[in-house]
Amino acid sequence: MFFASDNTSGAAPEVMAAVLRANDGYETSYGADAAMQRVTAAVRALLEAPEAAVYLVATGTAANALALATYCPPWGAVFCHQDAHIAVDECGAPEFYTNGAKLVLVPGDHGKMTPDGLAEAMARTGEGGVHGVQRGMLSVTNVTEAGTVYTPTEVAALTALAQAKGLPSHLDGARFANALVATGATPAEMTWKAGIDVLSFGGTKNGCLGVEAVVMFDPVKAWEFELRRKRGGHLFSKHRMLAAQFEAYLQDGLWLRLAGQANAMGARLANGLAAIPGVVQKHPVQANMMFPEWPAGGHTRAQAGGAQYYAWDLPDGREGARLVTLWNTTEAHVDGFLAALRP
Amino acid sequence: MFFASDNTSGAAPEVMAAVLRANDGYETSYGADAAMQRVTAAVRALLEAPEAAVYLVATGTAANALALATYCPPWGAVFCHQDAHIAVDECGAPEFYTNGAKLVLVPGDHGKMTPDGLAEAMARTGEGGVHGVQRGMLSVTNVTEAGTVYTPTEVAALTALAQAKGLPSHLDGARFANALVATGATPAEMTWKAGIDVLSFGGTKNGCLGVEAVVMFDPVKAWEFELRRKRGGHLFSKHRMLAAQFEAYLQDGLWLRLAGQANAMGARLANGLAAIPGVVQKHPVQANMMFPEWPAGGHTRAQAGGAQYYAWDLPDGREGARLVTLWNTTEAHVDGFLAALRP
Amino acid sequence: MFFASDNTSGAAPEVMAAVLRANDGYETSYGADAAMQRVTAAVRALLEAPEAAVYLVATGTAANALALATYCPPWGAVFCHQDAHIAVDECGAPEFYTNGAKLVLVPGDHGKMTPDGLAEAMARTGEGGVHGVQRGMLSVTNVTEAGTVYTPTEVAALTALAQAKGLPSHLDGARFANALVATGATPAEMTWKAGIDVLSFGGTKNGCLGVEAVVMFDPVKAWEFELRRKRGGHLFSKHRMLAAQFEAYLQDGLWLRLAGQANAMGARLANGLAAIPGVVQKHPVQANMMFPEWPAGGHTRAQAGGAQYYAWDLPDGREGARLVTLWNTTEAHVDGFLAALRP
Amino acid sequence: MFFASDNTSGAAPEVMAAVLRANDGYETSYGADAAMQRVTAAVRALLEAPEAAVYLVATGTAANALALATYCPPWGAVFCHQDAHIAVDECGAPEFYTNGAKLVLVPGDHGKMTPDGLAEAMARTGEGGVHGVQRGMLSVTNVTEAGTVYTPTEVAALTALAQAKGLPSHLDGARFANALVATGATPAEMTWKAGIDVLSFGGTKNGCLGVEAVVMFDPVKAWEFELRRKRGGHLFSKHRMLAAQFEAYLQDGLWLRLAGQANAMGARLANGLAAIPGVVQKHPVQANMMFPEWPAGGHTRAQAGGAQYYAWDLPDGREGARLVTLWNTTEAHVDGFLAALRP
Repeated sequence: MFFASDNTSGAAPEVMAAVLRANDGYETSYGADAAMQRVTAAVRALLEAPEAAVYLVATGTAANALALATYCPPWGAVFCHQDAHIAVDECGAPEFYTNGAKLVLVPGDHGKMTPDGLAEAMARTGEGGVHGVQRGMLSVTNVTEAGTVYTPTEVAALTALAQAKGLPSHLDGARFANALVATGATPAEMTWKAGIDVLSFGGTKNGCLGVEAVVMFDPVKAWEFELRRKRGGHLFSKHRMLAAQFEAYLQDGLWLRLAGQANAMGARLANGLAAIPGVVQKHPVQANMMFPEWPAGGHTRAQAGGAQYYAWDLPDGREGARLVTLWNTTEAHVDGFLAALRP
Repeated sequence: MFFASDNTSGAAPEVMAAVLRANDGYETSYGADAAMQRVTAAVRALLEAPEAAVYLVATGTAANALALATYCPPWGAVFCHQDAHIAVDECGAPEFYTNGAKLVLVPGDHGKMTPDGLAEAMARTGEGGVHGVQRGMLSVTNVTEAGTVYTPTEVAALTALAQAKGLPSHLDGARFANALVATGATPAEMTWKAGIDVLSFGGTKNGCLGVEAVVMFDPVKAWEFELRRKRGGHLFSKHRMLAAQFEAYLQDGLWLRLAGQANAMGARLANGLAAIPGVVQKHPVQANMMFPEWPAGGHTRAQAGGAQYYAWDLPDGREGARLVTLWNTTEAHVDGFLAALRP
Repeated sequence: MFFASDNTSGAAPEVMAAVLRANDGYETSYGADAAMQRVTAAVRALLEAPEAAVYLVATGTAANALALATYCPPWGAVFCHQDAHIAVDECGAPEFYTNGAKLVLVPGDHGKMTPDGLAEAMARTGEGGVHGVQRGMLSVTNVTEAGTVYTPTEVAALTALAQAKGLPSHLDGARFANALVATGATPAEMTWKAGIDVLSFGGTKNGCLGVEAVVMFDPVKAWEFELRRKRGGHLFSKHRMLAAQFEAYLQDGLWLRLAGQANAMGARLANGLAAIPGVVQKHPVQANMMFPEWPAGGHTRAQAGGAQYYAWDLPDGREGARLVTLWNTTEAHVDGFLAALRP
Repeated sequence: MFFASDNTSGAAPEVMAAVLRANDGYETSYGADAAMQRVTAAVRALLEAPEAAVYLVATGTAANALALATYCPPWGAVFCHQDAHIAVDECGAPEFYTNGAKLVLVPGDHGKMTPDGLAEAMARTGEGGVHGVQRGMLSVTNVTEAGTVYTPTEVAALTALAQAKGLPSHLDGARFANALVATGATPAEMTWKAGIDVLSFGGTKNGCLGVEAVVMFDPVKAWEFELRRKRGGHLFSKHRMLAAQFEAYLQDGLWLRLAGQANAMGARLANGLAAIPGVVQKHPVQANMMFPEWPAGGHTRAQAGGAQYYAWDLPDGREGARLVTLWNTTEAHVDGFLAALRP
């Protein structure tokens, strides 16, 4: 019963099979492999973006930091939620890759920026002429770090504010598939149709070994991105191993099936928790991650039952948890957890 | 008949099998996996360095750039051969990761620095007080970019000059196994016993998917390295996939067997070439990479025979080539190439 | 009647005379001038810090950014007030010089951090292991951007929190003299005796042409600072021009007399404003800068009377202003302003 | 008898008088002063460049590093002479400000690049696709570090190679006036008419306190430059002090008169040295700096006579020197030196 992180599971069988196949024979290195051509075509097709530039890297932090550095100058401000992964969990990678851009943190309930909150942050940034950093870009995370989901309309309301200031917008889609499944939106609706210029398209958390795509809908900065990727040490020599993963991930809708399973198990878990007296969700449960709080004793019972997850004590004597359901979480896992937790 | 690059082959079967096994079940992420503990122990044992800090990344450029940044301040000079990979083939990754250190290029025949050449470069650097960059560190590549090999004694002669100035020394061992096989040196003899402080220990070119170890013989900078790795986007969430590769790579001497095959095929190829009239090696052939030159017509014949390699024309009408033998190059590959090339 | 900024006035006559004298003859360049030796001795004496390293630069942004870069690693967090000059008015110079450190903004009334606010910010930073930036250092501004002043006791309460985490502390003393005059503290009491490790000791705003000292109470990083200063382009060739200013500035207490005049005129102005119906100070007036608010019409009258200052309209129909008194503001200036403003 | 450096003298009386005048009264800060408007107009007029963007900083290293960072991306190569000030004497400031661009060093006799040498360096840079740094820009120093001078035709031959690759060109004119006087070229002929895009226009070495202009002939990057200058800590609050210097420097041809004196004294010194048996110039003497070599004993005699200059011993027993004549060097100084040196 593993609910600690999307990263604790391995890769889906289809992805591993593709990696095994890709390992045979000889292939051109550094991204000039045939599989990458197929990946580019597939990503363009599903995003309805025939001109988009598509690149692969192995970690989400690399995808985000390279995307930000390509679109935000060193003297720019990146507007993001105060709990965004880029702000909290990347050890300053955005600042490193941008050569010192500043993350301007926008508050907001349940991990989501509101248009008012973003507008307020934009209004107090970049108004000091040369003395302050300039408005640089927007970064939206979907699924958020609180496990909530922006609809395309909500994303568009934020990017509209950015566009009004002439700023590009980034979507951190480490859990992009989960966000699409949760909202029923198409990839295009969630991205360029909602004003997104550059997308971190996650694979690792959702059934890959380690691969993320960066998609730039306008390819004008494609070569700059390639140079930044190489310079960051993120260009794989045996690049076909990344391409094979992502090709299998997209094939026949695997990526959405995997996220669908994770989200469905998330809903099942949330429903089960709602039926246990004293359990309260800190945030609305909309995808595959939740933050329930329950009376003292829950951790002991759940862990005795074999559950693994992030657990902490709350000041009021109650207990808090982060629970993540995975592409390979089963109903038995969920039900087993609920049975263990139940007093 | 693939002689273009070490990177065009896949991973060895033992490595792939380990990755498959590692994919099962659940595992702690971000380097806290059990396999990494075994990798650390194995690396320490074979390097006879029980205190060494050991970290894994996925690319050689990342390994080198992070190693340099950890040991050289931004105002430092990195002394290296003028054809070193860090100088020529990493798109400025060392400068990026060090925040602007300067690579001071040392000339030398056949890809190798001489003590005199290094001493001369050191003598004219850092003598201008605060006005010039300071001497920072030494970086030696073994196997060199010319396919030649330093003996431990030769490495020690260079590191002694660095130590005399109080500088640490780095070994870029993207082809570390090939250098050991070529010289018969032990890993310890080629590294810390020869004055090396930090090692890029290559796996990718020699039968892995994509994994390199960075070994710091004095672990005092271990935590700094971890922060730099994370900040560079090089900490894998599903880190076990790196650890599984490297564990299999080291197990039962696989890494040395693979390099042994590549070097043996290199010697067979060199011997065969020596028997063809008009073929001259630009550099001594000491490992698995060579730069032969031959009369006009060779490229046409070899490529017609199915050979793939880097080929160019020389000003004098002759032709030049880079040929790399791989862990899975066979005698049949070599002999087929020679047959095709022969007039 | 100039109240716009400390920077709109020129240099004090004593400072200009020293510059003129320094211009005669020949002098060793790049900081090896005899005047710099005298400046170092004088700064050490008045700070009661016989070992301190003392360097001069020409701008406050350079002093702050170099001080921060010398004490905070790229992966560190600099804790500072949310309105600090380093956060708001330096166009990201701290991020540039530190190679991407993160400023963690601490709220607090009237421009001042409270121990509780700082403790809260420290508690939520650097607890994520390698994933987040690490706690790096503290930076306190005195006089604050709100015109208020920390007592040495208040500074010590903040630095104690930093020391408890092993962090160094910086004092941005662009208006250091004004803070000393306001509190009656000695330079030592306000700095190292209160836990400060590195001081930006301002001259420009208080009667110099353009010179700030950076003082490191422990000289262990002196050489690193020199290299960072040179590398930042802040080492003056005709350095004696900086040294001459600072020598004159410190001589016979000139610096405290100039700040004393500015503060006294600040008090006179505040007293006069308090006597005008409807005038309210946004922050306590403790030095030479204040932010009064008054009923509509004040700007028109004051500007008609010849006053220059930063003026804005408030949402409620009232008006806001920033007024700065200078080393050469006179009673006539203050009284003239008050007469003009009075309805 | 001071021949050590241009930086050992003070400012010309006209410059000091202007600084004194500028100190009176109140003035808008941060470059919005009236004097700066006059400086911009004067620089544009004398360069015949009515659209040029003109900015002031206080040091030559700042001027150069900011100019390079504005025109060269982090993954670019800056082609320059191997003895260029930016390569040797700025402690890596170009690498710092560009975020890690690489200086590609071009050899050449007497401090000057030749078109063939530059073409060769360009040919071996940036040909490796994404793996190597890209060609970024050209930087030419005039007067060179060897005291020699490029004619406009020679500059144009170099910039033509840059333009053929689409690269911008920088002129490091720390001794710009001396180069103009030496060649008789107009400012326009030596810069934009010879293909220069951005100029470091020196004042400090030639009779100012500390001021250099950066001139961008196409102003499209003006705002970026302003942000980089602020972010580097090089925007002066009491900016009028820089503007006053440069205004006086340009007024009535003062700058050319000062350089004319320095160059004339250089010629007188060179002529006198030529008449002393055994004295040989290492480089042609074309401006105000020379590198004579003479038999043993010269240093002792010259220094006994009161001469100050950089002196060293040569391996063959002879002696070497760097002698710089200044804007205020007199015939008496020169003749006194010659008399002292003469055996």
